Amino acid sequence: MKNFLFLYTFLLLGLNSHAQTANLKSQVKTDTIHSEILNADRAYTIYLPKGYESNTDKKYPILYLLHGLSGINSSWFESASVKQVQDQLAASGESVDMIIVSPNAGGNPDTEWNGYFDMPGWNYEQFFYKEFLPHIESMYRVIGNKQNRAVAGLSMGGGGSTAYGQRHPELFGSVYAMSALMDLPENRNNQTDQNSQTKRALLTKSVIENSCVDYVINATEEQKEALRSIRWFVDCGDDDFLLDSNIDFFRAMRNAKIPLEFRIRDGAHDWLYWQSALLDCLPFVSQSFQR
Amino acid sequence: MKNFLFLYTFLLLGLNSHAQTANLKSQVKTDTIHSEILNADRAYTIYLPKGYESNTDKKYPILYLLHGLSGINSSWFESASVKQVQDQLAASGESVDMIIVSPNAGGNPDTEWNGYFDMPGWNYEQFFYKEFLPHIESMYRVIGNKQNRAVAGLSMGGGGSTAYGQRHPELFGSVYAMSALMDLPENRNNQTDQNSQTKRALLTKSVIENSCVDYVINATEEQKEALRSIRWFVDCGDDDFLLDSNIDFFRAMRNAKIPLEFRIRDGAHDWLYWQSALLDCLPFVSQSFQR
Amino acid sequence: MKNFLFLYTFLLLGLNSHAQTANLKSQVKTDTIHSEILNADRAYTIYLPKGYESNTDKKYPILYLLHGLSGINSSWFESASVKQVQDQLAASGESVDMIIVSPNAGGNPDTEWNGYFDMPGWNYEQFFYKEFLPHIESMYRVIGNKQNRAVAGLSMGGGGSTAYGQRHPELFGSVYAMSALMDLPENRNNQTDQNSQTKRALLTKSVIENSCVDYVINATEEQKEALRSIRWFVDCGDDDFLLDSNIDFFRAMRNAKIPLEFRIRDGAHDWLYWQSALLDCLPFVSQSFQR
Amino acid sequence: MKNFLFLYTFLLLGLNSHAQTANLKSQVKTDTIHSEILNADRAYTIYLPKGYESNTDKKYPILYLLHGLSGINSSWFESASVKQVQDQLAASGESVDMIIVSPNAGGNPDTEWNGYFDMPGWNYEQFFYKEFLPHIESMYRVIGNKQNRAVAGLSMGGGGSTAYGQRHPELFGSVYAMSALMDLPENRNNQTDQNSQTKRALLTKSVIENSCVDYVINATEEQKEALRSIRWFVDCGDDDFLLDSNIDFFRAMRNAKIPLEFRIRDGAHDWLYWQSALLDCLPFVSQSFQR
Repeated sequence: MKNFLFLYTFLLLGLNSHAQTANLKSQVKTDTIHSEILNADRAYTIYLPKGYESNTDKKYPILYLLHGLSGINSSWFESASVKQVQDQLAASGESVDMIIVSPNAGGNPDTEWNGYFDMPGWNYEQFFYKEFLPHIESMYRVIGNKQNRAVAGLSMGGGGSTAYGQRHPELFGSVYAMSALMDLPENRNNQTDQNSQTKRALLTKSVIENSCVDYVINATEEQKEALRSIRWFVDCGDDDFLLDSNIDFFRAMRNAKIPLEFRIRDGAHDWLYWQSALLDCLPFVSQSFQR
Repeated sequence: MKNFLFLYTFLLLGLNSHAQTANLKSQVKTDTIHSEILNADRAYTIYLPKGYESNTDKKYPILYLLHGLSGINSSWFESASVKQVQDQLAASGESVDMIIVSPNAGGNPDTEWNGYFDMPGWNYEQFFYKEFLPHIESMYRVIGNKQNRAVAGLSMGGGGSTAYGQRHPELFGSVYAMSALMDLPENRNNQTDQNSQTKRALLTKSVIENSCVDYVINATEEQKEALRSIRWFVDCGDDDFLLDSNIDFFRAMRNAKIPLEFRIRDGAHDWLYWQSALLDCLPFVSQSFQR
Repeated sequence: MKNFLFLYTFLLLGLNSHAQTANLKSQVKTDTIHSEILNADRAYTIYLPKGYESNTDKKYPILYLLHGLSGINSSWFESASVKQVQDQLAASGESVDMIIVSPNAGGNPDTEWNGYFDMPGWNYEQFFYKEFLPHIESMYRVIGNKQNRAVAGLSMGGGGSTAYGQRHPELFGSVYAMSALMDLPENRNNQTDQNSQTKRALLTKSVIENSCVDYVINATEEQKEALRSIRWFVDCGDDDFLLDSNIDFFRAMRNAKIPLEFRIRDGAHDWLYWQSALLDCLPFVSQSFQR
Repeated sequence: MKNFLFLYTFLLLGLNSHAQTANLKSQVKTDTIHSEILNADRAYTIYLPKGYESNTDKKYPILYLLHGLSGINSSWFESASVKQVQDQLAASGESVDMIIVSPNAGGNPDTEWNGYFDMPGWNYEQFFYKEFLPHIESMYRVIGNKQNRAVAGLSMGGGGSTAYGQRHPELFGSVYAMSALMDLPENRNNQTDQNSQTKRALLTKSVIENSCVDYVINATEEQKEALRSIRWFVDCGDDDFLLDSNIDFFRAMRNAKIPLEFRIRDGAHDWLYWQSALLDCLPFVSQSFQR
């Protein structure tokens, strides 16, 4: 009998090594919101910190975590173990308890709308600010001020995070952009094809129109001052094919005297990179929250 | 058209950012060996470094990478991205080109044999040394000496790696044990049930009989000297329920004056820990290879 | 002329790469307090964060940073660049602005009193709590509550930090002990010589009498509960000759169900270790401050 | 008596925790070479690995480690603990046993010649290749081939390392440049003053004439092919005032399809940065040695 006891315990612990009573555990849920603006249902995946169910008076900071092209709302959770990473960092004190939410802004780019910006026929950015954010922050116990709200993302979502910070410095206290699609070479080379109306073509056009690099270069002094109210972190691999536009963004920010943290680490445009970036991202946004 | 070009490139690179011609890429294959000793087929998953197909004269060092209880041959590759990690570390020079192979020694512990030791009715260790290792090292271009052969593993596979190093110091130049099942508390407390004959019970008994801690404590001076010919690395999380036996092992090794590297990092008994341990393991075994 | 401009700038920046106006810079000062209890003057070195002089209404958290045997008040600053490290970590957000103070508790152990405990003829601990801490916290703008007060140290100062936390859980929100002298083997072996009255012998006796390991083993349930109100971090090298007592301390804490972070990293009992430990210590205590 | 024993041991170990018999220890020596070319004596500081004195048949790889402007031969050893760092990395296997030598190429730039290039009246580069390198490699047991020779340095020495690798790819297997003076803004702006003949002015002119960025931009295909025979690592802080020219160098290398590792880490132009860069540099050059 003792053997059974051992092996039962072993397996159990192996699968769930921080035993917790059920309502103290962190949890990940997927839900759907109907958008009038998009005329479509949109799924989102949300992480609620341990104790969320029992401390019913407590409000939390929130991180909007954006996926990349062809990703969906569950991508961060499935490919980078967001729940396990945040549970561990919160346990050791490196990050604070927070809500993390990923909205769906993608899927197969041949058949699904992708992207975080407004495009003809798909006003995603309007959806985000007029429907999604208010819905989340009323449904869940979110503190709801600039200091306790952050946005981060990878690739297309890194560009989305940066542009969202640029256009809404009153909403976000910190931005962490990973391997970000800050701009497109087509922009610099005036190569865009203005006629194609496929979802891909419209996305491409929207990325160029919302170039994060051009935004900084063209910013007024007032806009620059607003950008200085955000804590910025830009992180890209030395083998990433998007590195060049990240360097352009960094140089534009430095020229504009807007402080930012900038890192080039070993790696390419892949989940290995984003898994390790997440270990820096969660402490970074935590440093802004509740201080 | 230019838009299409961009998006095609983007997706392609996003999925496969280090483009390589086909026969230069590293590859992961799964195959099966029939064991006379076990009277069963056993699967294994193997990583072959880039250039393996084209440099047909070159021989490589080899790492035997052992999974844990209820894991199988593909676990390391699926849950810790062995291919992507080794590709990246080899590209930056932190590890050398090597063959990595995981044999199946597990599955559902209620119905499948688990474990790396001989048990009544399942002589896995005999299979490993008489059939599996010779098969692999004749099928693939392996250098085949102690210096260029390593063994590593997690949990049950960490104990397996350690015991394999202990009993075959002539075969392995380095051992890296993660969150290792070095022994069982039942051993210290004389609590084992001698009668149960389930696969679980037999595994438990085999772990105690092959206690890595007792082996060091009881080693002759000659055996200790042999253990000193191996480079040892033991790595366990501060929240791991197996930490105690890892500390016992460390203390026994230090008492016996057998050098080893020992680390306690933040973490528990889970894939987050093993993913980051792999980043240390591959460079560590590489330091032994080809020097 | 342009050449001169370049080289002047180059050197200047090379020596002082974050130019700041004078009263915004962080500063390190050394001062002296006269102790009635010790009947002696005692020096201390103190770090004041940038902006301390200009934000005259702001109060700060405080870290008491204790040196080791034969060290003095300036040791941490000279051998581990406390000012430069804290300036950089605060700039990137990894630590918060704080005051850091090192009192002198040592020097040449053949001629000077060493140690953080009361000894016959040298009641250092009384001095610390009745004179030093009140003096510092009235002279400087310290927040002055448990949450915003931490103690950390290396070797003899790591043991001092731990014992201070144990006896004053109402004062300290976090403790970070590096390579700590938690106890002495003489204690376990009943080997102490009770007769010698040299400063060395009295120090040895005081370390044993104040064993951090025994304190946990013998703690009442009420004392254990108080210890749980502190965030603990214990960090020791795998080649440190004091590792054994750190492991004993860790095991005693786990048996008593008092949460702590525990790390064994590569290294020995030297400044290389403490320099890298400082990079973890300052963010760790910052996580407690002002949250 | 036992107390004395303890404290004696404690101190001794505290100061020298890896006890070794004398002729097995690593050592650092300073010596002087007379240069006919410079018509001056030049000091150098050299690290010899443990066992150098006893294994009198063994030859070693060598790292030339270059200091920055106003530094001298002892700077790396005094400000970045080269001996202690290399001892520890070699003990854990992260680096291999090697000889490390720093020649004096600086001092007070108002009164002393600084720089690694030939200048009117001070042909330092000729001295390095015709006198210094041959002297060192005949005086000490150096393997003496490209694979087992590396060059690294900080700031002015990072530029020196890069230029030395560029002009002598047949001599160096790897180059590690930290916070490197790759070029000067004066170069891009055609601002140099051609008339001043001070040591500072001549140094400035020599840096521009030997621009590491221009070398890559203007390299012939044959030169590029030679540059590909070196393993390159370029590492610069995000707050370093020299970062721009490091980015220019990186982009030039990528355009020329010459592989290199590139990192931007947190930090400025100071010893904190170079201390941590050394922890990557020694393993990186070790990966090239003896493989």
